[in-house]
Amino acid sequence: MSPSMFPTQHAAVLHAAKDLRLEERIVWSPKPGEVQVQIASTGLCGSDLHYYKHGRNGEFAVRQPLVLGHEASGIVTAVGAGVTGLVVGQRVAIEAGIMCRKCSFCQSGRYNLCKSMRFCSSAAAFPHVDGTLQTRINHPAHVVHPLPDTCSFEQAALAEPLSVLVHASRRAELTAGQSVLVLGTGAIGVLACAHARSLGASRVAAIDINQTRLDFAKKNGFADQTYCFPPADSPKNAEEQLRRAKENASLALAALDKEDGFDVVFECSGAEPCIQMSIHAATTGGKVMLIGMGTKNATLPLSSAALREVDIHGSFRYANTYPAALELLSSRKLGNVEKLVTHRFKLQDAKKAFETLERGVDEDGLLVLKVMIGDGQVS
Amino acid sequence: MSPSMFPTQHAAVLHAAKDLRLEERIVWSPKPGEVQVQIASTGLCGSDLHYYKHGRNGEFAVRQPLVLGHEASGIVTAVGAGVTGLVVGQRVAIEAGIMCRKCSFCQSGRYNLCKSMRFCSSAAAFPHVDGTLQTRINHPAHVVHPLPDTCSFEQAALAEPLSVLVHASRRAELTAGQSVLVLGTGAIGVLACAHARSLGASRVAAIDINQTRLDFAKKNGFADQTYCFPPADSPKNAEEQLRRAKENASLALAALDKEDGFDVVFECSGAEPCIQMSIHAATTGGKVMLIGMGTKNATLPLSSAALREVDIHGSFRYANTYPAALELLSSRKLGNVEKLVTHRFKLQDAKKAFETLERGVDEDGLLVLKVMIGDGQVS
Amino acid sequence: MSPSMFPTQHAAVLHAAKDLRLEERIVWSPKPGEVQVQIASTGLCGSDLHYYKHGRNGEFAVRQPLVLGHEASGIVTAVGAGVTGLVVGQRVAIEAGIMCRKCSFCQSGRYNLCKSMRFCSSAAAFPHVDGTLQTRINHPAHVVHPLPDTCSFEQAALAEPLSVLVHASRRAELTAGQSVLVLGTGAIGVLACAHARSLGASRVAAIDINQTRLDFAKKNGFADQTYCFPPADSPKNAEEQLRRAKENASLALAALDKEDGFDVVFECSGAEPCIQMSIHAATTGGKVMLIGMGTKNATLPLSSAALREVDIHGSFRYANTYPAALELLSSRKLGNVEKLVTHRFKLQDAKKAFETLERGVDEDGLLVLKVMIGDGQVS
Amino acid sequence: MSPSMFPTQHAAVLHAAKDLRLEERIVWSPKPGEVQVQIASTGLCGSDLHYYKHGRNGEFAVRQPLVLGHEASGIVTAVGAGVTGLVVGQRVAIEAGIMCRKCSFCQSGRYNLCKSMRFCSSAAAFPHVDGTLQTRINHPAHVVHPLPDTCSFEQAALAEPLSVLVHASRRAELTAGQSVLVLGTGAIGVLACAHARSLGASRVAAIDINQTRLDFAKKNGFADQTYCFPPADSPKNAEEQLRRAKENASLALAALDKEDGFDVVFECSGAEPCIQMSIHAATTGGKVMLIGMGTKNATLPLSSAALREVDIHGSFRYANTYPAALELLSSRKLGNVEKLVTHRFKLQDAKKAFETLERGVDEDGLLVLKVMIGDGQVS
Repeated sequence: MSPSMFPTQHAAVLHAAKDLRLEERIVWSPKPGEVQVQIASTGLCGSDLHYYKHGRNGEFAVRQPLVLGHEASGIVTAVGAGVTGLVVGQRVAIEAGIMCRKCSFCQSGRYNLCKSMRFCSSAAAFPHVDGTLQTRINHPAHVVHPLPDTCSFEQAALAEPLSVLVHASRRAELTAGQSVLVLGTGAIGVLACAHARSLGASRVAAIDINQTRLDFAKKNGFADQTYCFPPADSPKNAEEQLRRAKENASLALAALDKEDGFDVVFECSGAEPCIQMSIHAATTGGKVMLIGMGTKNATLPLSSAALREVDIHGSFRYANTYPAALELLSSRKLGNVEKLVTHRFKLQDAKKAFETLERGVDEDGLLVLKVMIGDGQVS
Repeated sequence: MSPSMFPTQHAAVLHAAKDLRLEERIVWSPKPGEVQVQIASTGLCGSDLHYYKHGRNGEFAVRQPLVLGHEASGIVTAVGAGVTGLVVGQRVAIEAGIMCRKCSFCQSGRYNLCKSMRFCSSAAAFPHVDGTLQTRINHPAHVVHPLPDTCSFEQAALAEPLSVLVHASRRAELTAGQSVLVLGTGAIGVLACAHARSLGASRVAAIDINQTRLDFAKKNGFADQTYCFPPADSPKNAEEQLRRAKENASLALAALDKEDGFDVVFECSGAEPCIQMSIHAATTGGKVMLIGMGTKNATLPLSSAALREVDIHGSFRYANTYPAALELLSSRKLGNVEKLVTHRFKLQDAKKAFETLERGVDEDGLLVLKVMIGDGQVS
Repeated sequence: MSPSMFPTQHAAVLHAAKDLRLEERIVWSPKPGEVQVQIASTGLCGSDLHYYKHGRNGEFAVRQPLVLGHEASGIVTAVGAGVTGLVVGQRVAIEAGIMCRKCSFCQSGRYNLCKSMRFCSSAAAFPHVDGTLQTRINHPAHVVHPLPDTCSFEQAALAEPLSVLVHASRRAELTAGQSVLVLGTGAIGVLACAHARSLGASRVAAIDINQTRLDFAKKNGFADQTYCFPPADSPKNAEEQLRRAKENASLALAALDKEDGFDVVFECSGAEPCIQMSIHAATTGGKVMLIGMGTKNATLPLSSAALREVDIHGSFRYANTYPAALELLSSRKLGNVEKLVTHRFKLQDAKKAFETLERGVDEDGLLVLKVMIGDGQVS
Repeated sequence: MSPSMFPTQHAAVLHAAKDLRLEERIVWSPKPGEVQVQIASTGLCGSDLHYYKHGRNGEFAVRQPLVLGHEASGIVTAVGAGVTGLVVGQRVAIEAGIMCRKCSFCQSGRYNLCKSMRFCSSAAAFPHVDGTLQTRINHPAHVVHPLPDTCSFEQAALAEPLSVLVHASRRAELTAGQSVLVLGTGAIGVLACAHARSLGASRVAAIDINQTRLDFAKKNGFADQTYCFPPADSPKNAEEQLRRAKENASLALAALDKEDGFDVVFECSGAEPCIQMSIHAATTGGKVMLIGMGTKNATLPLSSAALREVDIHGSFRYANTYPAALELLSSRKLGNVEKLVTHRFKLQDAKKAFETLERGVDEDGLLVLKVMIGDGQVS
């Protein structure tokens, strides 16, 4: 049976580090419970970039060709048996993780911790689960979310990274009137700022080593205050790094006129010195949320956390966030959050998109934050 | 010893229903732990109006001359022994309730439930505790709060009614993305709308029987949607009232395009039919917050609440709200909330102020929401 | 095709009020995702009794023959395709409600509120969902729970009513050191006592109008204190009923030496006077949990709740409770809770079982609490 | 004026490391708001031992003679002006920390974080605050708690260390049905076991390197399971220590038949390898409570915590715990917790008491857990 007998589509398939190929693939029909979605926009994520650059993401290596991409929106093109509530032509966002719905985590509402989770564009499971850098995808209907009328496809693609912050903010029990500090102002950090603001944070401060990123966050109204760390020599040893983290926290808090520290610190850099600093920068009784996790083991100023009841919380993916995230995006409560999308590429140019994301500045020297594949349209 | 030997001031003193007299009183020095505050603005509250009209508020009758007023701000004019953190000349808001700081409620942070609470302008305790409708007042420093630089005296006077909503919203665990319905759009209802918005509510709807009030809430951006109940005959009996409350809830939810009901309903009217409706208007798993309490006993559609796990929470005064409330007011997160202050009177004209508040419209037919005594200045 | 070609079993089928017939039914194979369970024990519930007596339960009328029973345990006799984690021969408890696993309630862990819930032995859905008063039942594996080794079948059948209390206690945030009052000491009330005790309640008091039930609760160590209301004339009107509820609360609190009221009140009677009393019997800042819901509308002393921040929470069924309930039952943390099972009948004698439950005392004048169908064995 | 004109008493005063002197001191009258308490029992705490051994506790050095002891009970011998609710002859427990009652932490119920806290037998403040190793002490009435009738003085002295666990358990939101692991079974660890049990923990496991301690915990019914780590060489470097912590966690979980990990881990040892192990030993979505804090900086397997949402919480002292702790102790919900008191000394023998505590075994080779000064009587 020849593939030519079936309708086909294109997919950006990773075979190994930097070996990304545009391939033709058969479009299968959706199985019972699934819908088929024609992809309009897919945002590129740091984990996609890791796979692209290294052929692996942390401990998960690509062992078979893998379609990347998991921040996606599109339009329903076919509906499988038994699906209710979704119809052909409907505009939707795709929630990338498919949970088992049987385990205690799923039944108790913490499905982000489901150990059988199958996540698009991830090599954690085998066979790998393909992502959304393809023309069409079949996906279980229960993790496909209708878009509010005023929500664009690009905004909808941002629902995935925004979900990370919705989840983290819920875990932090972030509430109006609290002060928030964000360490690291990449795409996730900027979303952390925007989301904290929408929750009524009394002030949102951002710290980075990159002034251009900070200027972006300040100029677009995501952060009230920014602080840029000056370049410095590497610390000689672990002790010096810890000492500097404490001093740097003091310097930053003084510069931000917030000597008592912040109620909630979102650590989005994943760098050990920043994680250390985040504890000193949190107020007594406050919370540190670890969003960026690039550090397997880290030395922490633990007594400074424990004796001041600064809680240290990880935040892993998200659960039950999509409706809230889509509503936030469509209601403009996040300000001009679409400015986060600094670059757009066609699916055919996915390789170039990854390289632009990797560099962090484009050919004109402009800042790269969120890179989108697709033009936010469906033909 | 003649009073003339001491400095004196003026106070608006209630002797009986509608018997409000401007009197000259001695200005005493603050005791240890107290500060003396020259009042700049005092907002009039519904409970003040009850005392003025009836000489009583619910079960609490005025048994001795009582100075009304408890929504106040001003400037520190003297500091008692042992006070730290406040200095003469400082701009402050006065938290009206003085808690015992010894009981389990105080020690565990729920001091609004303190049974020894002494509340300004209330006849609940005997001797009564005088309020802020006077030139100066001595008040314990630990319930006097410094103003942010950008907070005006009138905004600061609003910190008291706003605190009611900050407290109620915390009890409701109101969080971003939730939908909110407010029943009754007097001053408290409008603040409920504005506060819900600042917390990131996905939508804020308001219901009233007074179209002018609703127009105010909509036009000034406090409510996204409004619904005005048409006038109706009195129900013949309790059954009919309950039946109508259910029907009216359905009509309102349909008109507001929210058939599933609202996540949180703030019942600010205190009227039995509205309390009944609030239960039907809450979504399954949602919450009804009882803010206005004019009804001692009420017949509720209890199985509709219990079987849908709609929680019914009262909310009594507030605790630990002033810093958050002042921050909200000064940061403009509540929109043009000062528009709530529709009328201003001098202390000498306090009687006229109460009569204006009682009528609900002024001589020019304009809506009366919050009436302030004082011009927001200190001389 | 004749039924005789298939294996058959027996079922106790309700055709109309009091018309309960023992019928022979085909044993179908389990579908994919289901297991087949041979029932060892089924406890009879108040809702089963309602169906038996009236042919309806509240607004839900029996419109087709219905197998009653939903508090059940047994042994796995067949396993459908795709089922993992359960094997033939395994001892299990059956969670009676089958949730949709797609809606927001299911995904967020509050599946008890799922509007598509299909509940065994209930006429709420049509076609009705048959219950466990039959030899075998096919049931989705994700709501079938393995028993701890030390958990008997009868204990496992109690996991269902116990789940009601596990859920209600979680909603009440009941924690060690709190005082608990239980109104109504039928089977659910006794479980409320036993469960509160296992949570470390500082004291557990029970109120009823039936001294025999109270003696049972006290003698078996479920309640620390009991109070029996004396018989009284019916109140003349609603006002008198409310007044009496307040007086009776005062009398009971004085007799129980707990004038300040209880931290959590479990209202298990469903009677309006008791619901009224429960509010007065809760301490300031406490909680009333409505467990028994026999009252559609109820007049409440609402200001006594609202002004004291006594929260009124319904509690509907349960979610994510079975593992905890089975663990509690098998670990003996509930004391001699199996004494609750006062009577046992064979499936053939189901009609007699219902009549015994209805009377509340047996032929020897002994108290009837929980009636079990089955002998806690599988052949 | 000669001291001989005043009544005197004895006090055990620390002048420098190991320089503990029994001195005669004047008995002053209680100030307004204070009561005078004749001490019946004082338990010795690890922090007292640190002061005794090193003349300092962490960063706090003894700079003036300091009376040690802060786990105390006794009888009221005098009452200062304005004190209500306490009378001469009343049996009481002394809550050792005196909070400011003015700051935001105090007003919001987290007074354990009060930065002006004055804590008995601590050199953190200057002048230091004397402790309870003296015949009588004057202490603010609002932190003196009446004893239930059935609570002995020795039990009451245990209310202080028990409060640490009540507080930590509340922060962990520990609830019935959860599994608990305790690392380190000194006095605090044993109380952690006993308290977890009283809260309805489904199982309580304990780990130590000291088999005698584990036997004590198991034999007296505080722990369901125990696991003793075998002696081992010191790890060569940080990497090996981290690797071993992970392996040891696996070994322990396997031995305890709990491969999925525990819901809550109370880390009571303060040792870095145990802190590392605690993260691996917690279940996905679980919590690590840091109770013992002997480690200023610690290297943690942070991604194992963050990616599994294992929250890391310090727990510092306690707030609003005494009534609950005293109730637990008097109600026997903690089992034979008084067995924890292995040794008793007179005030005159305080030096010998500290030396016994330091050794950890007495002259007869018996385990030393909690050492009491005083005989639990007042003359």
